[in-house]
Amino acid sequence: MFDRVTFIGIGLIGSSMARVMKRDGLAKTIVACARRKETLDTCLKLGIADEVTPDYAAAVKNADLIVIATPISTNGEIAKAIGPHLKPGAIVTDVGSVKQAVIDAVSPHIPKGAHFVPAHPLAGTEHSGPEAGFPELFQGRWCIITPLPGSDASAVQKVRDFWEKAGSKIETMQADHHDKVLAITSHLPHLIAFTIVGTADDLAEDLKQEVIQYSASGFRDFTRIAASDPVMWRDVFMNNREAVLEILQRFTEDLTALQRAIRRGDGEALQTLFARTRAIRRGVIDAKQA
Amino acid sequence: MFDRVTFIGIGLIGSSMARVMKRDGLAKTIVACARRKETLDTCLKLGIADEVTPDYAAAVKNADLIVIATPISTNGEIAKAIGPHLKPGAIVTDVGSVKQAVIDAVSPHIPKGAHFVPAHPLAGTEHSGPEAGFPELFQGRWCIITPLPGSDASAVQKVRDFWEKAGSKIETMQADHHDKVLAITSHLPHLIAFTIVGTADDLAEDLKQEVIQYSASGFRDFTRIAASDPVMWRDVFMNNREAVLEILQRFTEDLTALQRAIRRGDGEALQTLFARTRAIRRGVIDAKQA
Repeated sequence: MFDRVTFIGIGLIGSSMARVMKRDGLAKTIVACARRKETLDTCLKLGIADEVTPDYAAAVKNADLIVIATPISTNGEIAKAIGPHLKPGAIVTDVGSVKQAVIDAVSPHIPKGAHFVPAHPLAGTEHSGPEAGFPELFQGRWCIITPLPGSDASAVQKVRDFWEKAGSKIETMQADHHDKVLAITSHLPHLIAFTIVGTADDLAEDLKQEVIQYSASGFRDFTRIAASDPVMWRDVFMNNREAVLEILQRFTEDLTALQRAIRRGDGEALQTLFARTRAIRRGVIDAKQA
Repeated sequence: MFDRVTFIGIGLIGSSMARVMKRDGLAKTIVACARRKETLDTCLKLGIADEVTPDYAAAVKNADLIVIATPISTNGEIAKAIGPHLKPGAIVTDVGSVKQAVIDAVSPHIPKGAHFVPAHPLAGTEHSGPEAGFPELFQGRWCIITPLPGSDASAVQKVRDFWEKAGSKIETMQADHHDKVLAITSHLPHLIAFTIVGTADDLAEDLKQEVIQYSASGFRDFTRIAASDPVMWRDVFMNNREAVLEILQRFTEDLTALQRAIRRGDGEALQTLFARTRAIRRGVIDAKQA
């Protein structure tokens, strides 16, 4: 499928993609590029990369496919560094959880003749680093591709083909719409989980220990979400600010209404809402996302 | 262990307890008492009750153990109805997610010579009704017993023995402390999940369908929690108002601080919090609650 594939950043997502390529023989040579020597050594040891280098220019030389899989805030600077060294026809893709900000940062640095195909696999775990990856991570999960107006059709198709090999279901979408949908399905839930776990962390030590001990009654699910990579998530919120703040505003209004209902003892308002939310769960099960 | 056990209310929790008793031969006769004929028929059909009746007085006659497993708001009225018909030495227990309000409602109706032992198994699923139960539900989960000052020690021990047979780990606690801990570990997480799923339910239809389709990226976990029994949860919030409002207030303050950090582009504040919440997950894993 590809002669030479370069991963810039090779944590949970990048290393899982590399494992898919190794498993299915999709790349003759895989190059891993990361700043930390330890990460590169791990990639060699795990056999998920054939060559490693901390140097952007050397990493992308002669590569057919370049996957940027670092926290979003670094993407612009990486694109600037690799742009001049891309070979004609090279495809650059990414895996960021925000698409418009990445497009704005990366596109200007992609030279004529090379192609940028933004993509976002909706997959992950709360673990980070190249050791955390596994090739089945994307199996049955969505990958959203947000092609640019005028994107090269065959480049888009190649990225699509890779994600299909990885077992993903593919959807294409406009970047700003992607960011709005993900603000609701992913970014706000993460923000809330981080918040509630932080609130618990601020409790007096005795009470905190009890909260951990009895976490299985609901809190536990939030701790799993709130164990996700801090830098990655910082960048998500910094780069999808408007959409996140808009949905957060709605959520806060709704929470205030519930708070008022509890304070006033309005059980009917609570029950009506709680019955309504059950129906959404049914939708999630029907969509085979449960 | 018991000659005659009566369940008043036999949904997910009650029917799971009855299944444990059937499995381990802990009761000669199990009586199910519920208002709806359909529920009683289901219990007979499933073989989890030997006798059924909608009548409180008839249900508790000669029973050694009476388990109240209905939504909390009904517990006072049930205690009032069964009190005069309890045999000397009868043990009344419950399974409510709030303890102080239940004690206040039930205790005054328990006659001298009978014993009330409040308990709360920290177990459940998002499914309801007698069909939803299974005997392994309590395996490895906590059951918190909140004995009253002056509770009969042998009655407490009998309730404890049952929960141990069910596979639970037992902890005793003061009722008001239980309510404070559960407000954080369970009630607030449920309130937030109900809220966010409600916020999504209010979206325009197209966007709502997309949120369901891409729910696996975080939102899904909230929909599962928000599919829990509406009446049960209404009663939890109505009966643990103070503790819930207090922790909700803290949560809201913390969320407002994060909102401000996002608006101002203060990535460092976000990253610091996100790194901190990871440590709590480690605690949950160490406590074998993950």
